[in-house]
Amino acid sequence: MTPILTVFKWSPDGGSGLARDMRVRWALEEVGQDYEVRFVTFKQMKEPEHRARQPFGQIPAYEEDGLRLFESGAIIHHLAQTHPGLLPADKAARARAVTWMFAAVSTVEPPIVEREQADFTDADQPWKHPARFAFLDDRIRARLADLSAYLGDRDWLDGDFSAGDLMMVLVLRRADPALVAEFPNLAAYVARAEARPAYQRAYAAQHALYGGKAPPMSEW
Amino acid sequence: MTPILTVFKWSPDGGSGLARDMRVRWALEEVGQDYEVRFVTFKQMKEPEHRARQPFGQIPAYEEDGLRLFESGAIIHHLAQTHPGLLPADKAARARAVTWMFAAVSTVEPPIVEREQADFTDADQPWKHPARFAFLDDRIRARLADLSAYLGDRDWLDGDFSAGDLMMVLVLRRADPALVAEFPNLAAYVARAEARPAYQRAYAAQHALYGGKAPPMSEW
Repeated sequence: MTPILTVFKWSPDGGSGLARDMRVRWALEEVGQDYEVRFVTFKQMKEPEHRARQPFGQIPAYEEDGLRLFESGAIIHHLAQTHPGLLPADKAARARAVTWMFAAVSTVEPPIVEREQADFTDADQPWKHPARFAFLDDRIRARLADLSAYLGDRDWLDGDFSAGDLMMVLVLRRADPALVAEFPNLAAYVARAEARPAYQRAYAAQHALYGGKAPPMSEW
Repeated sequence: MTPILTVFKWSPDGGSGLARDMRVRWALEEVGQDYEVRFVTFKQMKEPEHRARQPFGQIPAYEEDGLRLFESGAIIHHLAQTHPGLLPADKAARARAVTWMFAAVSTVEPPIVEREQADFTDADQPWKHPARFAFLDDRIRARLADLSAYLGDRDWLDGDFSAGDLMMVLVLRRADPALVAEFPNLAAYVARAEARPAYQRAYAAQHALYGGKAPPMSEW
């Protein structure tokens, strides 16, 4: 069966490729695997039918021949087991690429998402304070500085492009571009990834859905 | 060669098993793999020698026959490729177990760590406010409620015990126990895991190092 990817009916990012289904779309394009999409509204995401696919009521979810998976990292890991092109064949190189998949979601992403959420969670709250935003930005900077120092003049994190780069680039795209721009080698790394044909196809596919005029919020 | 795990010289948790090397120690015990430990002080963690093993200056780091890995999830994933006992052999079951490894670090852990850090980051800051702590606790509750609803009366997240459970249990142990206790099946799940002989051996190994009187902070 053609795999089915469950995605937002309307993405709050307006098609800028920041929703986590973009990670899976890009991976599917890298390996040349066709897929279908199923849409869920914000309301449907919290209902039992979707929670049977994704217990935390989030997107993406993935189905293939009776196998149901969630977590973008895990879906991409699965695709890498069944298709060439996402993880190296050499065992040691493969283990290092998996390291970067986990580093993306576990070490680099949390401060970026926390800063992003603060724009909403702190609004109208008694703890809203500009110093907190500056503190959160500095925490992102510390991670970016470490990553930039490691990357140096490498094209990709470890040898050829891998799922580790795919995950890391989409995490970096979620940060304030002005912060990433403070580290020219990271900005160039993101641009290098965005130039890949598979990225462009994946971006276009989601942008075709969400890039237009936003529907009323009741339809999200 | 015997694998080498790099760990804190002194763990700020005083041996309660919350540092992330505990995940790898437990996995090594589950598969019966001996290991050696290398200690790093807080100062050494930020120096070039350690950053060559762990670019973000954190623990744990792992070395084995010239292979250097970091990120507890990736180290455990590697151990599962080379030893039976951490991930199921069946491909679909294996993919689902990997899903739970990512769910642990990417979906359940971030709000727990954010709350834990707030005790330190908010102290003496102009944004310190009790309402923020309550908000952060509620965000953890929402994740725990989803996980509890999914777990139901299962013993483990998906079939037999796997690396997904190992990761999830140690993430849950990092939350305020009073929050986890609001969900009796989650509290029982944690207790079930803690009763495993491999967990007990791993816990004892780190507690033997950190369970005594704390040295002066200059020696951490």
